[in-house]
Amino acid sequence: MIELRRIKHCRACGTPVGYKVPDDDNRERAVCPACGLIHYENPLNVVGTVPVWGEQVLLCRRAIEPRHGFWTLPAGFMELGETVEDGARRETVEEAGANIELQDLFTMISVVRVGQVHLFYRARMTDTTLDPGPETLEARLFHEHEVPWDQIAFRTVKETLQHYFACRRAGSYPLQCSSI
Amino acid sequence: MIELRRIKHCRACGTPVGYKVPDDDNRERAVCPACGLIHYENPLNVVGTVPVWGEQVLLCRRAIEPRHGFWTLPAGFMELGETVEDGARRETVEEAGANIELQDLFTMISVVRVGQVHLFYRARMTDTTLDPGPETLEARLFHEHEVPWDQIAFRTVKETLQHYFACRRAGSYPLQCSSI
Repeated sequence: MIELRRIKHCRACGTPVGYKVPDDDNRERAVCPACGLIHYENPLNVVGTVPVWGEQVLLCRRAIEPRHGFWTLPAGFMELGETVEDGARRETVEEAGANIELQDLFTMISVVRVGQVHLFYRARMTDTTLDPGPETLEARLFHEHEVPWDQIAFRTVKETLQHYFACRRAGSYPLQCSSI
Repeated sequence: MIELRRIKHCRACGTPVGYKVPDDDNRERAVCPACGLIHYENPLNVVGTVPVWGEQVLLCRRAIEPRHGFWTLPAGFMELGETVEDGARRETVEEAGANIELQDLFTMISVVRVGQVHLFYRARMTDTTLDPGPETLEARLFHEHEVPWDQIAFRTVKETLQHYFACRRAGSYPLQCSSI
């Protein structure tokens, strides 16, 4: 859930803030009574890939909370200084150590409850090298019938995988924009 | 430009923070020496539309900085509690007072220098009602030859408009993902 009113102190001067609707605005923001700074809170992007090798997709088993031990696609928060595509590539390297060629944007799912947008690209693995990082217990390739559907970490990952296998059967890969 | 090290005080307890690389991380974050809170800073989404009425597109002249007096597509920061699509619709209502049917995602442009991702949808105006809000000096419809190309507020808006007119000539509207 989105943590409301989680800002208690001004990031510029440390003074306790109050929540109010600033002039020329229509939402409550944390406003500093000392220096006047308005603190905006906005949704964040989680970026990742569906890495594919032949008939198989790559999944990573999480070594961290939330959902420790569950399977996910490589993904994580987009960082300052990178493009959406850079972030998707970076997370694939950090979490799986896979070598990929990024393809088209494949799903964009707004996760309103937690203030996130999840963006997944299709990616072609260029070899079967895998070198999982510290956030991953293991990384491996799965045929569709092997996917552990009841052990998938996040609903956006499950929806993206379902969309992928449906698209593969149909032979085309349109972008899916949705929300949960 | 991205403001680096702009967090001076902990948002939870007000203590002056220091920037360092937390354990199990690979980037500097503002970390509170008193309560241990790690403050992440990530790119934000700007969401908007290309509202179309017949052969014409809707532009708004900005009543606020930056780029006061320049023309833009209706767009603004995505807010907590909404989907990407909700945000694009909301900004179109707030800035232009236009009635639209949202269509497909049309451009997604990473603006790395400022830590933003700009997402524009095509939108079909359902009538010619316009009721500009306080952030807009005027809103009006433009034929392609009337677009004030040298008075467009932002490069992502210019690229989105150029992509739109090129797509219209070609008769199809594929998503453009790019970065500047």
